[in-house]
Amino acid sequence: MRALASDDFEKGHTALLSQLTSVGSVSSEQWAAHFDAMQRAGNYHVVVIEDEAQRALVGTATLLTELKFTHSCGKVGHVEDVVAAAECRGLGFGKQLVLALLDVARALGCYKVILDANEKNTGFYEKCGFAKRELQMRIDL
Amino acid sequence: MRALASDDFEKGHTALLSQLTSVGSVSSEQWAAHFDAMQRAGNYHVVVIEDEAQRALVGTATLLTELKFTHSCGKVGHVEDVVAAAECRGLGFGKQLVLALLDVARALGCYKVILDANEKNTGFYEKCGFAKRELQMRIDL
Repeated sequence: MRALASDDFEKGHTALLSQLTSVGSVSSEQWAAHFDAMQRAGNYHVVVIEDEAQRALVGTATLLTELKFTHSCGKVGHVEDVVAAAECRGLGFGKQLVLALLDVARALGCYKVILDANEKNTGFYEKCGFAKRELQMRIDL
Repeated sequence: MRALASDDFEKGHTALLSQLTSVGSVSSEQWAAHFDAMQRAGNYHVVVIEDEAQRALVGTATLLTELKFTHSCGKVGHVEDVVAAAECRGLGFGKQLVLALLDVARALGCYKVILDANEKNTGFYEKCGFAKRELQMRIDL
């Protein structure tokens, strides 16, 4: 496991994400521009698991940190885009990724970490230490 | 209504937020450092409503935008920290703030906007066009 690197487009980062949700058409140039923008912003922490023999990513998850004026000008972590490759399910990669992000969040001084999950995934996140709290609401633009 | 400004600590920004959640102890210097960090990051959009006669804020809400590798390298808006002053409830300020943030999100090209709400506040957000989707989960660090 390591941080997302600038050559991970070639290692199937978007193909992996497509197992989670719609990725759409993303060129290597678009991917690289997004990677650079996230590096500059400094508040995106993307971890990946690589199958080094295959030079292919088999897991990824993102922590976005948010500055708050509340909670003594505290920081909140948002867990986003957690996915383990279908062929690796059951190996505990998902939990390893989430626990790694919690370590990052602790190191950065986040007072809480939140995420949004489908009802069917709540059991997995409960095993990672999360509890159900509020309702996520959405509007499509 | 306008964007949060550098002198809004003096206009009661933290006192207003304390009607929503725990603010803790925040000095004007801490507030200013946070304000500057958010300006530099460029992905925080805080709107406020000011009672100009009183030189006091009576409403605020925040949009945090998140870059995604998914959805054609799209952008998601997160609505956070929506509060209207207790003495102004019923004047529609909350809805004005949320709709203003949706306009910002549209202008920035967000493909969706999400938020987390208590069950008791879901009716308000439904009037703003949101629908219940997932479950928010949390871990305190």
